[in-house]
Amino acid sequence: MDEKEVGSSPGTLVYTGTMSHEVDGCLYHYREDMLRETPFAGSLPALDAVPDCTAWLVVHGVHDLAMVKQLGARFQLHPLVMEDLVNPVQRMKIEEYDDYLFIVLKWLVRNESGDWETEQLGLILHDQWCVLFLEEASDLLEPLLRRLRKKNSALRKRGPDYLVYAIVDLVVDHYMESVEELSEDLETLEDTLMDPDAAPLDDLKELQNSAQTIKRNLRAMKDLNNAILRVDLPVIQDGTQLYFRDVHDHALQCLDQVESVQESINNALNFYHSMISLRLNEVMKFLTMMGSIFIPLTFIAGIYGMNFQEMPELKWRYGYPAAMALMALVSIGILMYFKRKKWL
Amino acid sequence: MDEKEVGSSPGTLVYTGTMSHEVDGCLYHYREDMLRETPFAGSLPALDAVPDCTAWLVVHGVHDLAMVKQLGARFQLHPLVMEDLVNPVQRMKIEEYDDYLFIVLKWLVRNESGDWETEQLGLILHDQWCVLFLEEASDLLEPLLRRLRKKNSALRKRGPDYLVYAIVDLVVDHYMESVEELSEDLETLEDTLMDPDAAPLDDLKELQNSAQTIKRNLRAMKDLNNAILRVDLPVIQDGTQLYFRDVHDHALQCLDQVESVQESINNALNFYHSMISLRLNEVMKFLTMMGSIFIPLTFIAGIYGMNFQEMPELKWRYGYPAAMALMALVSIGILMYFKRKKWL
Amino acid sequence: MDEKEVGSSPGTLVYTGTMSHEVDGCLYHYREDMLRETPFAGSLPALDAVPDCTAWLVVHGVHDLAMVKQLGARFQLHPLVMEDLVNPVQRMKIEEYDDYLFIVLKWLVRNESGDWETEQLGLILHDQWCVLFLEEASDLLEPLLRRLRKKNSALRKRGPDYLVYAIVDLVVDHYMESVEELSEDLETLEDTLMDPDAAPLDDLKELQNSAQTIKRNLRAMKDLNNAILRVDLPVIQDGTQLYFRDVHDHALQCLDQVESVQESINNALNFYHSMISLRLNEVMKFLTMMGSIFIPLTFIAGIYGMNFQEMPELKWRYGYPAAMALMALVSIGILMYFKRKKWL
Amino acid sequence: MDEKEVGSSPGTLVYTGTMSHEVDGCLYHYREDMLRETPFAGSLPALDAVPDCTAWLVVHGVHDLAMVKQLGARFQLHPLVMEDLVNPVQRMKIEEYDDYLFIVLKWLVRNESGDWETEQLGLILHDQWCVLFLEEASDLLEPLLRRLRKKNSALRKRGPDYLVYAIVDLVVDHYMESVEELSEDLETLEDTLMDPDAAPLDDLKELQNSAQTIKRNLRAMKDLNNAILRVDLPVIQDGTQLYFRDVHDHALQCLDQVESVQESINNALNFYHSMISLRLNEVMKFLTMMGSIFIPLTFIAGIYGMNFQEMPELKWRYGYPAAMALMALVSIGILMYFKRKKWL
Amino acid sequence: MDEKEVGSSPGTLVYTGTMSHEVDGCLYHYREDMLRETPFAGSLPALDAVPDCTAWLVVHGVHDLAMVKQLGARFQLHPLVMEDLVNPVQRMKIEEYDDYLFIVLKWLVRNESGDWETEQLGLILHDQWCVLFLEEASDLLEPLLRRLRKKNSALRKRGPDYLVYAIVDLVVDHYMESVEELSEDLETLEDTLMDPDAAPLDDLKELQNSAQTIKRNLRAMKDLNNAILRVDLPVIQDGTQLYFRDVHDHALQCLDQVESVQESINNALNFYHSMISLRLNEVMKFLTMMGSIFIPLTFIAGIYGMNFQEMPELKWRYGYPAAMALMALVSIGILMYFKRKKWL
Ligand SMILES: [Mg+2]
Ligand SMILES: [Mg+2]
Ligand SMILES: [Mg+2]
Ligand SMILES: [Mg+2]
Ligand SMILES: [Mg+2]
Ligand SMILES: [Mg+2]
Ligand SMILES: [Mg+2]
Ligand SMILES: [Mg+2]
Ligand SMILES: [Mg+2]
Ligand SMILES: [Mg+2]
Ligand SMILES: [Mg+2]
Ligand SMILES: [Mg+2]
Ligand SMILES: [Mg+2]
Ligand SMILES: [Mg+2]
Ligand SMILES: [Mg+2]
Ligand SMILES: [Mg+2]
Ligand SMILES: [Mg+2]
Ligand SMILES: [Mg+2]
Ligand SMILES: [Mg+2]
Ligand SMILES: [Mg+2]
Ligand SMILES: [Mg+2]
Ligand SMILES: [Mg+2]
Ligand SMILES: [Mg+2]
Ligand SMILES: [Mg+2]
Ligand SMILES: [Mg+2]
Ligand SMILES: [Mg+2]
Ligand SMILES: [Mg+2]
Ligand SMILES: [Mg+2]
Ligand SMILES: [Mg+2]
Ligand SMILES: [Mg+2]
Ligand SMILES: [Mg+2]
Repeated sequence: MDEKEVGSSPGTLVYTGTMSHEVDGCLYHYREDMLRETPFAGSLPALDAVPDCTAWLVVHGVHDLAMVKQLGARFQLHPLVMEDLVNPVQRMKIEEYDDYLFIVLKWLVRNESGDWETEQLGLILHDQWCVLFLEEASDLLEPLLRRLRKKNSALRKRGPDYLVYAIVDLVVDHYMESVEELSEDLETLEDTLMDPDAAPLDDLKELQNSAQTIKRNLRAMKDLNNAILRVDLPVIQDGTQLYFRDVHDHALQCLDQVESVQESINNALNFYHSMISLRLNEVMKFLTMMGSIFIPLTFIAGIYGMNFQEMPELKWRYGYPAAMALMALVSIGILMYFKRKKWL
Repeated sequence: MDEKEVGSSPGTLVYTGTMSHEVDGCLYHYREDMLRETPFAGSLPALDAVPDCTAWLVVHGVHDLAMVKQLGARFQLHPLVMEDLVNPVQRMKIEEYDDYLFIVLKWLVRNESGDWETEQLGLILHDQWCVLFLEEASDLLEPLLRRLRKKNSALRKRGPDYLVYAIVDLVVDHYMESVEELSEDLETLEDTLMDPDAAPLDDLKELQNSAQTIKRNLRAMKDLNNAILRVDLPVIQDGTQLYFRDVHDHALQCLDQVESVQESINNALNFYHSMISLRLNEVMKFLTMMGSIFIPLTFIAGIYGMNFQEMPELKWRYGYPAAMALMALVSIGILMYFKRKKWL
Repeated sequence: MDEKEVGSSPGTLVYTGTMSHEVDGCLYHYREDMLRETPFAGSLPALDAVPDCTAWLVVHGVHDLAMVKQLGARFQLHPLVMEDLVNPVQRMKIEEYDDYLFIVLKWLVRNESGDWETEQLGLILHDQWCVLFLEEASDLLEPLLRRLRKKNSALRKRGPDYLVYAIVDLVVDHYMESVEELSEDLETLEDTLMDPDAAPLDDLKELQNSAQTIKRNLRAMKDLNNAILRVDLPVIQDGTQLYFRDVHDHALQCLDQVESVQESINNALNFYHSMISLRLNEVMKFLTMMGSIFIPLTFIAGIYGMNFQEMPELKWRYGYPAAMALMALVSIGILMYFKRKKWL
Repeated sequence: MDEKEVGSSPGTLVYTGTMSHEVDGCLYHYREDMLRETPFAGSLPALDAVPDCTAWLVVHGVHDLAMVKQLGARFQLHPLVMEDLVNPVQRMKIEEYDDYLFIVLKWLVRNESGDWETEQLGLILHDQWCVLFLEEASDLLEPLLRRLRKKNSALRKRGPDYLVYAIVDLVVDHYMESVEELSEDLETLEDTLMDPDAAPLDDLKELQNSAQTIKRNLRAMKDLNNAILRVDLPVIQDGTQLYFRDVHDHALQCLDQVESVQESINNALNFYHSMISLRLNEVMKFLTMMGSIFIPLTFIAGIYGMNFQEMPELKWRYGYPAAMALMALVSIGILMYFKRKKWL
Repeated sequence: MDEKEVGSSPGTLVYTGTMSHEVDGCLYHYREDMLRETPFAGSLPALDAVPDCTAWLVVHGVHDLAMVKQLGARFQLHPLVMEDLVNPVQRMKIEEYDDYLFIVLKWLVRNESGDWETEQLGLILHDQWCVLFLEEASDLLEPLLRRLRKKNSALRKRGPDYLVYAIVDLVVDHYMESVEELSEDLETLEDTLMDPDAAPLDDLKELQNSAQTIKRNLRAMKDLNNAILRVDLPVIQDGTQLYFRDVHDHALQCLDQVESVQESINNALNFYHSMISLRLNEVMKFLTMMGSIFIPLTFIAGIYGMNFQEMPELKWRYGYPAAMALMALVSIGILMYFKRKKWL
C-alpha cells in the first residue's frame, strides 16, 4: 500500500490501495419501463442525464486519479470527498454537502488466508444520479443487478435514494451472512474443545479477530443509519425512510448476534482453559499416586539390597515375606491417605 | 433454515424458519358480555369487524405465504412488515405505521437439548383488531385464553391495546420464570463445585449461554417498553399506559436478576478455578514431600548396594544401623525444611 | 415461595412471600404537640383522619389479602399497586399516581446463613396519610419510633412527606452500615490470604455475592432518589427536597464504597491466585532440585550394584572413592546449573 | 470512629471522626493593602465583618460541636450542612443554598502504613466570608498562606470566590503530586518484576488500592467542578469561572494519569503472572528431562542388579559394556524425542 | 523536570519541561502571492501585522519565560494560558477567550528506548495571527512548510484558521502513522508467540503501554474536535469547518484502529497463556508416563535385588524370564490405562 505522506495537503489525491487493473464499470439509466446499460472501460462514458430516469454509475476501481478528478468536476465534489474516495481506509460514514450526499460503506471479503477483510464502497447521491465506487468488480453486486433488470421491480419504480438504500441493505445482508458463518465456525470449533490435542487455539484467535472486525464495522454502520434516520435529508424521500429504519433494525440485530458470538468465544476459551487445568490435575494426581506408592517401596527394597555383612533380617527364615508384608502395609497406608484426601 | 438470499428485494416473502405444519388458528371476537371463537385451519375465516367488539386473530404458523399476503392486503401492511412476519429472526421491536402498530416479541422455548431458544411473535394492532402470528401453536397462550373466556375479566372489559399489553406481560412473566429456573440450576450446580470430578464445567457454559440469550432479549424488551412509554401512541389509551409501566418494571427487575445470575456464574467459575489450583498445589506438595524424602534415602541404600570389593563400611560391626541412622537423620532434616517452609 | 402463575391477570392478588404470621401493626396520629398510637392485630382499626394530624399506618405483613384489599379501597389504590404490595420481589421504585405516591423500598436482612437478603417495604403517601407495609415487624424501625415519641422532634413538626424521607434515610443508613460491615469482613479475610490453607475462598465468594446484592439495590435507590429530585412532586414540599438531596448524597457515597469493596475483593482474589502460583513454583523447584540431583546419583549407584562378572571398576583399589567422587562431581555440576538458572 | 446511630434524626450533630485535640484556628481579614490575622484556640473570636475586606476563618477540628453550632447560627447554616461538617466521611460535593455555597473537599494524607487516606475539608462561601473546616491543622495550607501574606498577590486582590478557587486548586495540585508519586512507585516496582523472589505482589496490591482511592476522589472532584462550571452561581464572579475551568482541566488530566497508572498496574500483574508460568514451565521441563532419562536407565541397572541365579547376560564376556551401550542408546533416543518436541 | 510547587499561584510561570537550548523560531507572513520568512534566535522579531497577510509565528521552546511574557503582553493572553504554554504536561484541549482561541496539542515522539512519548504544541489563533509554541524544533513540521512555500497552495490561499486546521491534521496524520507502526510491531510479535522461549512478553507489555498512551491522546483529540465542530467559533470560517470534520473523521478512525490493536494484543496474550499451559500439560504428561512405567518396574527389579537368603524365586529355573514377563505385563497395563484416559 502506498502510504499517504504525513502532512500532505488535504484533497491531495494519492491512491493508497493495492489495485492496479484497468478501471471499468457501467452506467445504468433506468425508470419503471426502461433500462439502458452503458458499459465502459478505461475512460468514462458521456454523463448526460436522461429525463425521468435515475442514473447509476458504477466504477470498478478508485486508482485512476484522472477519472476521479473528471467525476469530481462533473458533480462538483469537494476535494475532501475525492480524497476519501481514493483512500480506501475510511470508516463507514455519511456526509451531507449542499448538493449531494457522500456515503462510505465497507463490505467484507475473505482474504486468501480465510480471514475477513473489508473493501470500501464510495457512494455519491446527487439529484437523479447515484455514483458508486468499488475497489474492484465484485459478484456481491449481482443480486442488485438482477433486481434492476426485472421490469416493475420496486427498484425500477423508485428513485436514486431507494437505490442507495438497496446498496446499504445489500451490505448489511452480507454482514449478516458473515456473522452466520462465524457462528457456525464457532460451533464446529466448540465440538473439538474437549480434545486438547486438537488445539483449536489458533482458530479461536482468528475467530476473535474476525468478530472484532465485523463488530467494529457494524458499529460504524449503526452510526451511519442513525445519522440518516435522525436528520431529515432532502435527497431521501419520506417513503424511503421506512426502508432505512428496516435496514437499521437488521444492523442492530446483526450487532447483537456478533456480540453474542464474541461472548460465546470467550466462554469457550474459559471452558478450554479449565479443561486444560483439570487434565493437568488428573495427570499430576496419577503421577503423584504412582510416585508416592512405589518410591517408598523401592527404598525398602533398596535397604535389603545393601551389602552389609551384618544385616540380621537377611538371615531370618521369613525375612523375605516379612519385607513383602511391610511393603504391602506401606502401600495400603498411602492408598488410604489418598482416599481420605479424595484424590482417588 | 432456508437462508434468505443476500441482496433480495425488501418485502420479498421468503419464510426462513423450520416449520411446515398446516397453518391453523382462531379468531376471537369479544366484548364484556360476549365471546365468539372461530377456529380455522388451512385458510383464513372471514375477517369482518363485529360492532363494539375487539377482534383477535391468532395464526399458528407464518410459513403460509399466501395467507400472510392475504392478511397484508386486508390490513394494508407495509411490505417490510410482512417480510419481518415471515422471517422469525427479528429482534424484539415496535414500529409505528400510519394506521397500525407492529410489534415483534420473542419468547423462550427449551429445545430438545434443554437450552433456551427463542420463538417469534408478530403482533399487529390495527383499530379494533389485534393479529398475533406465532411460529406454531403453544401452551404458553393458555392462561390468556382462560382469562378471555372468563366473563367480566379485565381483558374482556378493555380494548385491543390492553390485549397487546396482556401478551407483552405474558412474555415478560415467562422470562421471569425462566430466569428463576436459571437461578435454581445455578444453585444446584454450585453445590457440586467443591467436587472437581463432578466437572460441572459443561453445564456452567450452558448456563452462561442461556443467561446471555435471555439478557439479550430482555434488553430488547426494555427498549420496546421504553418506546411505548415515551411516545404517545394514539392506539394505546391513557389508562393502558400504566399497565405498560408495570410490565416495564417487571422487565427491568428480570434484567437485574439475570445480570445477577451472570455475575454469580462468573464468581462460581473463578471459585472453581481457584479450587483446582489449590488442589493441584496440595497434590504436588505431597509428591514433593514423598519424592524429596525417599529419593535421597534410596540413593543412600543404592550406595551400600554397590558391589565394590573395597567398601570398608560394609564390614563394620554397626555399619547397617549406622546407615539406617544416617537415613533417619536425612529424612528428619528434610522434614524440618518442609516445616520451616510451611509446606506441612 | 408461592409462584405467581405465568400470565395471571394484572392486579391478581397472590401473595408470593413466605410469611404466615397474623398481621398486626400500629396506627400513629401525630402533630407537634400530640401523638396517638393505636396498635392493632388481625383486623384494621378505623382509618379516620384526625384534623391537622399526620396519620401513619404501619402494617406488619402483606399476606393478609383481605386487609390489603380493604386498604386499597380506602385509599383508592390502583390494582397494580396492590399487586406490587403483596408481591415482595419488586425493585425499589417510585410511581406517581393522581392522588398518591407509591414507593417500594428494600432493606437488607441477614438470613440464618449470614448472607444478605432483602425485605420489601411498600409505602403509600396520600394526603395526610403515610401507609407503610413491612413483610414482618422489625427492630429496624425502632430509631424512627423513638424520634416520633420525642415531642418537638423534627419528625413531629413536619408532615407525611418528611416521614417518607425519614424512612428512606433509615433504609440508606442501614445500607451504609452493611457496607461498613462488608468492608470489615473483607479486611479480616485479607489477613488470612497469605495462608493458603486457611482457604478463605468460600468466604470471598460470599462477600462478592453480598456486595452484588447491595450494589444492585443501591443502584435502584439512586434511580428512585433521582426521580424524586428531578420531578416536582406536589406531595413533597419544597423544604423536604433538601432532605432528599442529602439522602441521595448518602446513597451515592454508599454506592462508591460498595464499588470500592468490590474492586478490593477482586484485587484480593488476584493476589491470592498469584500467591498460589508462586507457592506451586517454589514447591516444584524444590522437587526438581531433589530429583535432578539424586536420580542421576542413584543411577550411578545402580550401575555399580549390577552383578556382571566382568566389571573391572569393582575390583579397583580406589573404585569406591572414585565412584563417590564421580557422584560428587555430578551433583556439583547440577547445582551449578541451578545457580546459573537462578532457581536457587 | 464513633458510629452514627442508624436512623438518627437528620441534622443530629454526632462527630464521627477520630480527632480529640483542642480546636484552634485563625481568622484572616484581608484586602489588597491589608492583612489582619487573628489566631484563636478553644473558642471563636468575634466574627464581625471588616468593610471592603474578605474574611477567611480557618477552623482546625470539627469535633467541637458547640463551636460548630455557634458558626451555624452565625451563618444561618442548614442543619444538614452542619451534620455534614462534623461527619468527615462525605463525598466531595457542592451544594447551593439561598445565601451560601457549601463545598466538601477531600485531600490525601498518607497514614502511618504508607497508604493514602483522605481527610475532609468543609467550605462555606457566604457573602464576604469563607469558612474552612479542617479535621486538624495541616502543612498543606502553607503555600496558600504564603501567597496571602504577599502584598499585591492575586489572592489579596480578589474576593472570597477566588479564595475558594485557590483552595480547590491546592487540593487538585496535591492529587497530581500523589499520582506522580504513585507512578514513580510503580516504575520502581516494575524493575523487580523479573525477579519472582522479590515478590512485589503485596506492594502491587497496595498500589492498586491507592490508585482506586485517588481515582474515586478525582471523579467526585470532576463532578464538583462540572457543577461549578455548568451552573451560574451568583457568588462566583465571571472572571473566576476561567480559573475553575483551569482547575477542572488539571483534575481531568490527573484522572487520565491515574487511569493510566491503573492500566499499567494491570499490565504489570499480567506480565508477572506470565513470568511465573514461564518459569514453572522451564523448571518442569528440566525435571522431566532428568527424570525421563535417568529413571529408565536406573531401571536397566536395577535389572542387572537382580540376584537370579540364572541370568545369562551377567556371565557374558562383554555383558557390562553391552548394558552400558544399551543405556546410552536409550538416553540418546529420549534426548532425540525431546529435541523433536522442541523441549530442548 | 522541575516540579511546579503545590499551591503556587495560578499564572505563575515555572517551566516544568526539560529543554534548555536557546529559543529560536521563525515568523511567516503570507498571502496567496507572497511569503516572507523572518527567522529569529534569542529574541523575538518585530510583531507587526502586514496588511492582508496571515502571520504565523513558530517558537521553538517554551522555557524562555521572558519571551513568553512578551508574547503574552503583545496578544493579551490570560495568565492561565501562559501558564499552560510553559507547562508541557497539559491534556489536548481548546479554550475560547474573548479575542483568541487557545489550543493545546500533543504529538508523539519516540524516546531513546523506543517508547512513544508526547510533546506539547501550544497554539494561539488571534485575528490574523497564529502563534505556535513547540518544545523544540521538529522535522514533523516540514511537510507544512513545503506546502506553505508552494505558491497557490490551499494553505496560501486561506487564512489562519485553515493553518490551524492544517496543524491539527498534521498531528492526526502522525498518530495514524504511529498506530500503523504499532500494528506492524504486533504482527511481527505474533509470529514469535508459538515459540515460548522467544519470550516476547516484555515487548507485548511495551506495546500495551504505547497503545494506551496513543489511545488516551486520541480521546482528548476527539473531545477537542467535537468542541470545534459543536461550537460556532467566530475565528473559524464556515468553509474551514468541513476540514475539521474531515480531521475528526480521521481521528475517530485512528481511535478505532488503536482499540483494535489493543484487543488484538489481549487476544495474543491470552493465546500465549494457553500455549504455555498446553505445553506444560504435554511436558507433564510425558514425565508422568515415564515415571508411571519405570518407577514400578524399578521397584520389581529392586525386589529381586534384595539379599535375603530365602528368596525361592531367585533359584527358579525361569525366575529371570518370569520377572521380565511380570515387568512387561505391568508396563502394558499402565500403557493401556494411559490409552483409556486419552493421555496418549
Ligand atoms: Mg492530509
Ligand atoms: Mg478524509
Ligand atoms: Mg489471520
Ligand atoms: Mg436486509
Ligand atoms: Mg490477523
Ligand atoms: Mg477496518
Ligand atoms: Mg433484503
Ligand atoms: Mg425487516
Ligand atoms: Mg447448548
Ligand atoms: Mg407481569
Ligand atoms: Mg450452545
Ligand atoms: Mg436471538
Ligand atoms: Mg493459571
Ligand atoms: Mg401478570
Ligand atoms: Mg407490578
Ligand atoms: Mg450464601
Ligand atoms: Mg442518612
Ligand atoms: Mg449464594
Ligand atoms: Mg434483589
Ligand atoms: Mg440520619
Ligand atoms: Mg448529609
Ligand atoms: Mg493547579
Ligand atoms: Mg493496606
Ligand atoms: Mg487500604
Ligand atoms: Mg473515600
Ligand atoms: Mg497552581
Ligand atoms: Mg492550566
Ligand atoms: Mg518502556
Ligand atoms: Mg500523556
Ligand atoms: Mg488527515
Ligand atoms: Mg514504561
